[in-house]
Amino acid sequence: MRDFETWLTASMDKPDSRTRQAMSYALLAPGKRIRPALLLAALEDYGCDRSLGYPAAAALEMIHTYSLIHDDLPAMDDDDLRRGRPSTHKAFSEATAILAGDALLTQAFETIADSDPAVVPDLVKVLARNAGPEGMILGQTLDLDAEGSQDITFAQLEDIDRYKTGCLIAAALEMAAVLAGHPEDRETMQEIGMKLGIEFQIQDDILDLTSTEEAMGKSLSDQERGKATFVSTLGLGSARDMVKDLDRRIRLLTGSLHMDPDRLVKVFDQLLNRSR
Amino acid sequence: MRDFETWLTASMDKPDSRTRQAMSYALLAPGKRIRPALLLAALEDYGCDRSLGYPAAAALEMIHTYSLIHDDLPAMDDDDLRRGRPSTHKAFSEATAILAGDALLTQAFETIADSDPAVVPDLVKVLARNAGPEGMILGQTLDLDAEGSQDITFAQLEDIDRYKTGCLIAAALEMAAVLAGHPEDRETMQEIGMKLGIEFQIQDDILDLTSTEEAMGKSLSDQERGKATFVSTLGLGSARDMVKDLDRRIRLLTGSLHMDPDRLVKVFDQLLNRSR
Repeated sequence: MRDFETWLTASMDKPDSRTRQAMSYALLAPGKRIRPALLLAALEDYGCDRSLGYPAAAALEMIHTYSLIHDDLPAMDDDDLRRGRPSTHKAFSEATAILAGDALLTQAFETIADSDPAVVPDLVKVLARNAGPEGMILGQTLDLDAEGSQDITFAQLEDIDRYKTGCLIAAALEMAAVLAGHPEDRETMQEIGMKLGIEFQIQDDILDLTSTEEAMGKSLSDQERGKATFVSTLGLGSARDMVKDLDRRIRLLTGSLHMDPDRLVKVFDQLLNRSR
Repeated sequence: MRDFETWLTASMDKPDSRTRQAMSYALLAPGKRIRPALLLAALEDYGCDRSLGYPAAAALEMIHTYSLIHDDLPAMDDDDLRRGRPSTHKAFSEATAILAGDALLTQAFETIADSDPAVVPDLVKVLARNAGPEGMILGQTLDLDAEGSQDITFAQLEDIDRYKTGCLIAAALEMAAVLAGHPEDRETMQEIGMKLGIEFQIQDDILDLTSTEEAMGKSLSDQERGKATFVSTLGLGSARDMVKDLDRRIRLLTGSLHMDPDRLVKVFDQLLNRSR
């Protein structure tokens, strides 16, 4: 991913205002770049050049980063730490963090518009639909609604994560199909992404519970906060079974794509069996 | 503008979450729709059908509205009233206001992508550039930087308003040239828009000072807050001279456009000689 990282860093090369500094601070913090990795791997599996997907991959990372900045604000999750460093509103100010989030969200669309003009309308729609009030933001809304409620059901939790995490992963995969000229795979990619989002979140909850005490770069895990998780609603055994089941379904869907999904499956594995 | 208002209202017809409700509350509040009016008038002057510009006009109004929602937040300007009603974070909550702003910003790009596909890449770039960290958000950043500083110069104030107000007005006009197939007018339109933004703001400051005591639908004017204005840095006489000078320059530029600017000049007049 060094190729993409270099490209992304160059796209932020204008630290000419405090807002710009805050944008770079958040965007260029060491991160896993999951969504770009998925998009670029899928492009390669389709036989395309990775660089074709840089603008869309950067846009995804900008959207993901803005959502973290705004999520961490005092009025939202009120998190002082992110990726092991002070969160953006702590390192700068609340006002600057709000503006930096808005600016990354805006720049995401400016960046994606540099893709092949023939597919820009479709890319913009896929990104906005999955990031907007019927996508990621719906997940954040449901999450807010659930806060303070004592009995979160498994179905509610699944809904929150389907939108909050699944949609942006689905966007990464669907945009690869659009960019590669394989519109017949768009629906399957969307489905894989939504399932992968849930699987990733369940896996994350399992790791939260079972990981050793080493520093995790987060201030408090959801478990420690007393927030409902998949493990607390399903139990550890059922959660593990569900991961296995999702894994099987995802591999079936992946097999029906018009590509040889070598690299894509490797990224799935990195994503799900990661040790933090 | 009733045609556009109907279209805009229909685009918000999904009040299926609290975030959606907050989006509608802010977007559909009675407003002057300055930016849509400019874009649609310019399209007609180019001999095009107004409806060609609905998606772009709606996108502009969504961006303008999101910026008001976020500007009103306690960490920013901390305004309890907007357009005579409780501001969004007062009517809902801070968290919902943050999400509703993010959602309107995102939906703006989803909406503009429904324009003629051939010009979508250009439209997205014009909108994002003028709304982003080199445009409107730069204006908000400069505004934040200037806060608390005792001596704001005229040049600083002009810079703040050039970006904060001028850029989005410039985007409205430039997008009309793009949509109408007159790329040769894009630069002139951008220039007219930036000048019009400054003129509008100076006029606004003059009206703030000279208007009668009737309710203005704002909680506190900038003068009352002790914030620097064009009138306080220039004096009333020079401010009025500057409006006249800008007026002259804008009319010269408008004369060089590849159109008969009948309707456009009428909207300029409404904008600048309005009684609130």
